[in-house]
Order: sequence, then structure tokens, then C-alpha cells
Amino acid sequence: MLKEMLENVREHRPLIHNITNYVTVNDCANMLLACGGSPIMSDDADEVEEITSICAGLNINIGTLNRRTIPSMLSAGKKANELGHPVVLDPVGAGASVLRTRTALQLMEEVRFTVIRGNVSEIKTLANGSGTTKGVDADVADVVTGENIGQAVSFAKSFAAKSGAVVAITGAIDIVADADRAYCIYNGHPMMSDITGTGCQLSSLVAAYVAANPGRELDAACAAVCAMGVCGEIAHERLQSLDGNASYRNYIIDAMYHLDGETLERRAKYTLTDA
Amino acid sequence: MLKEMLENVREHRPLIHNITNYVTVNDCANMLLACGGSPIMSDDADEVEEITSICAGLNINIGTLNRRTIPSMLSAGKKANELGHPVVLDPVGAGASVLRTRTALQLMEEVRFTVIRGNVSEIKTLANGSGTTKGVDADVADVVTGENIGQAVSFAKSFAAKSGAVVAITGAIDIVADADRAYCIYNGHPMMSDITGTGCQLSSLVAAYVAANPGRELDAACAAVCAMGVCGEIAHERLQSLDGNASYRNYIIDAMYHLDGETLERRAKYTLTDA
Amino acid sequence: MLKEMLENVREHRPLIHNITNYVTVNDCANMLLACGGSPIMSDDADEVEEITSICAGLNINIGTLNRRTIPSMLSAGKKANELGHPVVLDPVGAGASVLRTRTALQLMEEVRFTVIRGNVSEIKTLANGSGTTKGVDADVADVVTGENIGQAVSFAKSFAAKSGAVVAITGAIDIVADADRAYCIYNGHPMMSDITGTGCQLSSLVAAYVAANPGRELDAACAAVCAMGVCGEIAHERLQSLDGNASYRNYIIDAMYHLDGETLERRAKYTLTDA
Repeated sequence: MLKEMLENVREHRPLIHNITNYVTVNDCANMLLACGGSPIMSDDADEVEEITSICAGLNINIGTLNRRTIPSMLSAGKKANELGHPVVLDPVGAGASVLRTRTALQLMEEVRFTVIRGNVSEIKTLANGSGTTKGVDADVADVVTGENIGQAVSFAKSFAAKSGAVVAITGAIDIVADADRAYCIYNGHPMMSDITGTGCQLSSLVAAYVAANPGRELDAACAAVCAMGVCGEIAHERLQSLDGNASYRNYIIDAMYHLDGETLERRAKYTLTDA
Repeated sequence: MLKEMLENVREHRPLIHNITNYVTVNDCANMLLACGGSPIMSDDADEVEEITSICAGLNINIGTLNRRTIPSMLSAGKKANELGHPVVLDPVGAGASVLRTRTALQLMEEVRFTVIRGNVSEIKTLANGSGTTKGVDADVADVVTGENIGQAVSFAKSFAAKSGAVVAITGAIDIVADADRAYCIYNGHPMMSDITGTGCQLSSLVAAYVAANPGRELDAACAAVCAMGVCGEIAHERLQSLDGNASYRNYIIDAMYHLDGETLERRAKYTLTDA
Repeated sequence: MLKEMLENVREHRPLIHNITNYVTVNDCANMLLACGGSPIMSDDADEVEEITSICAGLNINIGTLNRRTIPSMLSAGKKANELGHPVVLDPVGAGASVLRTRTALQLMEEVRFTVIRGNVSEIKTLANGSGTTKGVDADVADVVTGENIGQAVSFAKSFAAKSGAVVAITGAIDIVADADRAYCIYNGHPMMSDITGTGCQLSSLVAAYVAANPGRELDAACAAVCAMGVCGEIAHERLQSLDGNASYRNYIIDAMYHLDGETLERRAKYTLTDA
């Protein structure tokens, strides 16, 4: 299954429209190219509808959101809905400010998202309508572990049911769920959190995977999350004694560039829970 | 000739004002430093005229353009014209949205460009006044090949004549032309298109080369295009089995950092067609 | 002393709010993660007060400043003052445009800075109320050398007295001074100036160091400057023949990721002058 998802990305080379933050935008673009997709970044209200129309999918990331780009997110999202394009939401820092929480909730109200991907604190904020996210990282109290995974899966499924989107909660253990089924994914490496923007890159990747695999949103999002985790592992194995987070960043993108379906299938570690 | 062009950049260390997109801006800055130039990025209408005045050249790149930065592009461009500074236009995504096409055409109307550098779809859009660019990459139908190179050269020359600028159409084969002469350049590597922003970096580089070689716009632009292609090749030879597009990005900039005039002369592959 | 400063950063993992330019923002984020801190970037007036409230320190960098972000800098700075959070100013390009000079001076008037870090031309501009900075690099005429170091130290101390901030003037020789004491730091490598944003990264680092070492601003700023210089040296030793400024950029961040207190103590080269 994962193999097919990955190969569809490489075959169809989906063009992904990203309205995203200026911190990690370059890495998102290179990650999209690495996976076989193609990026375009555009955030002006005067062109976003048109740009999203020529694309296969849209990725909305609210990091460094501002009053100029919020209306662009809304119109691009609505246009993508109208055209039946998949739309991904990355609610970066939802819970850390009223502006971020309110914008994420407004986006969810006005745009139908195919996938919502965030850390557990961000997703809890969206589910509860408010939150206390510490910056852009998950609160320790929220973290998904072997102990509370059952609860976390139920939460993800019920938020997926409520939102109508596939929900991807990523962290040490990743959960990718729709209303009925949930994947728990055990790939990745803790050092990935020492790089800025691995979450943002993953959201771009998810957009490419769902765009290239229409009608199979859950599986496609799962494949993207597995791919990112596997690349985090491959890149970590490559680290030499002097390499730190900057080299690791490059190696993860490099690993995605070379990732093939067989390797993804062989290295992916996940379980599937049905309703 | 190429050697001299390169050495003039290293000797004069031209300060280049960039009004450019936030996707590839960091790579543009490091590429300018690598070639021996010096970058300054500034896009607020309240300072662009002043900033461009202390610079040796201006590079206008319309990727992630917006209503705040478009007036800045216009005033910086006019100021640079007034001062006799070279100005480069990179019409990223012209043809992909009305805003980009219209802005690029307005810029061409109000600013005299020294060099216009883009992929073939972008340049065709400017020449025709409209287009259907697929995102930020060239349409397959437009690509310059051994078969249609004669036609492409004629097109480049006639657009150069019409626009008054040196026209650089880059792709598998690059064409750098003024109204009378055209260079066809055969350097580079296909994998360069798997990195975001090699085109943007090249436009910054072109600005440095034309700024350091006044009165020799065509040769300077040709030298910059050759230098980029040669660095793409040198960097590709350096790739190890695990390296992908992220490492390749770094290696190209690294290669520019070390490039000397002899190597450029020896490795450059081009032909010159006179009128 | 330096060891303790560094270890406090790794222990307290200060969350740093950055209002910074889009050129080097990604490197600033990765540098903050490398040193053991945590970054959040946010520049919209509607959220900066709230974001800075959840942080341990604020870093204001005026590169690519604009009319939208200037009010954000002012409100975030005032809020941080109100909360007693340390605030760092990086006056990128002060002296290169009236907008930059005026904004930096206005910030200094309305916000109490803990540390002001810039190159000598930028700092002179702030001290004199005007300047002629050549782009974002220091004027040759201003450069601190073995010859004029005494004068430069006096200048730094008197500007520290006047501004109430620790003043960090960085270049071949770095000076970190308050009204009474001054550190002269001899670490680093000239090739650091061939990378865009080593200054910006250092300002983020300084913010993390002062945030994690409350009440010890001078020593903390000195430790951050030493750490950056030492990492510049370690990274330079790692360079292989094909590595240029792009790889060097990564290696410096990598070196910070691995830097420990013992290495910092052992490699730091500085003198302390008391009043």
C-alpha cells in the first residue's frame, strides 16, 4: 500500500500550492521536490485562487500568519474546495496566541480540510476551541506515549469525525486517523525535533501524497507520515560524529530524494486499528 | 572572456540589492557571497530607493510578490535606471497568474532592464503578453532542444530587440541573447531542477556579473550562466550515493565559492551566433 | 563562567521570540535549537504581545523591516519590558537607509534593550544618530583592529552607559561591554563573513544566553559571542577542499549542536577590562 502511494507521487508529480511561513518555506519546497512533487509558494490575495487552480493540492500553514495572508488562506482554501482539490491544514502554534487559534478555527469553519496535521497540543487546541500551546512545540503533558495511546487514538478518531478531515497527530508516536480507522506509526527519531520545520515539511509532503492518491486520503497521509519517519531514521544512520541538526536537516531531505517504495514498505512500522 | 568577467566580480565585490521571494532568498544571499559579491535584501517602499542607491546593481524577482512589494519593485527599478545601475528581472511564474503576468509586464514598461532571465515559458509569456505557465517550471511543450534551438535563438534575439534587454532563457540548453548576438550554453545538469531556486540564484548571480562588468552586459550574463552551469556540474560530480537535492544545493554554492576563471574557461561549453 | 552560561541554556531551553528578517530566519531557528534553546517566529501586531509573553526572551532584528513589522517590534519590545524579559536588538543595516536608522533609534527610545549587537558601523550609527553603513557589512574605516582596540572599547562602554544596554560590537575582534567592564574576544574566522546571517544567528544566540542567565547579561552575552566564534573555528577545521560557504554554514550550526561547556572554556580567547 505505502509503495503504491509513494510511486503515485513520483509518477504524477503533483504541483502543490503552499501558503506557508517564511521560516521553513525553503525546506518545504525542497522536500516537495525530493518526494517527486513540485512546489509553488504564493500568498497574495490577488493571485491565490488562480494559483491554486493550476495546482493539484493546497497546503495551508499558519506559522508567521499575518493580516495580509489570512484572507489569502481563506480564499485559496475555498477555491480548492470548489475545485475538489485536497487541502491540508498545519495549525502551527494554535493555542499559543488568540490570533493563531482563532484563525485555525475560522479556517476549519470556512474550508473543508482533507487532512489536518499538527502536534498533539495544536490538535487539542482545535478540538477544544482554545489551548495553551507552549510556542510551536507540544506540551509535555499532552505527549502521546505507549501508556495513553488508546485514549489518543479515540481522541483523533472523534476529532476526525467532527472535522470531517483525516487527522494526523505527529510526535514520538504518530496517529493518522479518520472517523473509523487509525494508524499508529512508530518511525522517526527524537533528533528530528532539533530541526526547525520537520512538521512543516511533513505537511507539504502530506499534501503531495493526498493529491497524488485521490480518494485514499487516510492511506496517503499515513504513507507520507511513514515516509518522513523512515527518512528521519535513514538520515540519522548517516550522521557522522561532527554532524548536528543542520546536516541532519539536509540528510532527511536527501533521504526523501532517494526513498523508494520497497524501502518504505520494509522500514515502515505501523499498526492499523479499525472502528 | 569568461575569466575576466568572473575576476571582475571577485575584484569589485558588487553590492546587489535584491527584492526577491522569501522561498529562496537565503540561497540567493549565499550564492552572491560565494561568487564574490555582496547581498542586501530590502523590499519596503520607504527604503528601496535609498538602498538601491548604495548598491552596484538591482535584482527584481517576482516570486511571492505581493501588493506591498510590487510598488517597491517599481520605485527601486526606476531609481536604479536613474542612477544607471544594471537591473535584472526574474519573472518567476509569469503566466501562472494574471498578477504575475501583469506585474512583470508593468515592470518592463516602467523600468529599463539590463537582463531578463527566466525559463522559456516565463519569457514567452512576457513576449506574448499572456501565458499558461505551469507553476514555476517551464511547460514541456516550450522546452528548448537541439531540434528547435534555431527558432529559440531567433525568438530570444527578437525579444531582446523589442525589450532592449539582454534575454537569458535558461533550461537544458541556455540562450543568452541581445538583438544581434546569441550565446547557446550547454552546461549544467538536469538534477539542478530538483532544487528550489537555482533560477533565482542565477538571477542574483547575473546581477553581480553585469554590475561588475559595465558595458558588457551580454558577455557578463553569459559568463554568469556558464558559471552556474559549471558549478552544477562540479557539484554533481561531488555527489555521493546518499546525497540528494539538499546536499546538491549546498555543493553548488560551495562550487561557486571555489570557482576560478581558469576552471570556468576550461569547462564552459557554448557557441556564439552573430547577427 | 562560560561553561555555566552554556549549560544554563541547555538546561532551561529558553523559548525565544524572534521578529526577524526573512533572509536568515531559518538559520536563526536552527541555531537556537542547536544551542539548546527553542525558537518561535511571529511578527503580526495582532499576536506579538501574546507570543512574547509565553517566551523567555525577545530578539528584534531589523533586516527586511517593513511598515507592517515595525509596529510589531515596538509592541513586542514594550511588552517584554513590562514582563522583565530580556530583549536583544540587532540593528541590521542601520545607517544604510533613513528607515533603518530611524527605526533602530525609535526602538532604542521606546524599548529598553538588554543587549544591542551589531557590526561597528551599525553601532556607530546608533551612537551618532546617523551613519553611512555600506549595506549590511561594516565599513572598512570602522573596523576594530589591534591598533584601535582601546578606542573601540571606550566607545562601546560609553555607548553602553548611554543606552543602558550591554553592547556587543562584533567583527574580527569582538567587544562586549557594559558601562564598567568590557570583554575583547578573539575567536572566530574571517570566512564567517562569507556566510549570510552569522550576525543574525549570533543575535538569536545572545537572546537565548541572556534569557537563561538572568542578572548576568554581560557574561551571558560574552559567552554567546565566544560560543559563536569557537563554533566558527571548529567548523572551519572541519572544512574539506570542496566545501565552501554553504557547507560552512551547516558546520557552524552543527558545531553549536555539539558544543559543551568544557570545549567552550578551553577554546575561548578573551580578555576582560574593568573600569
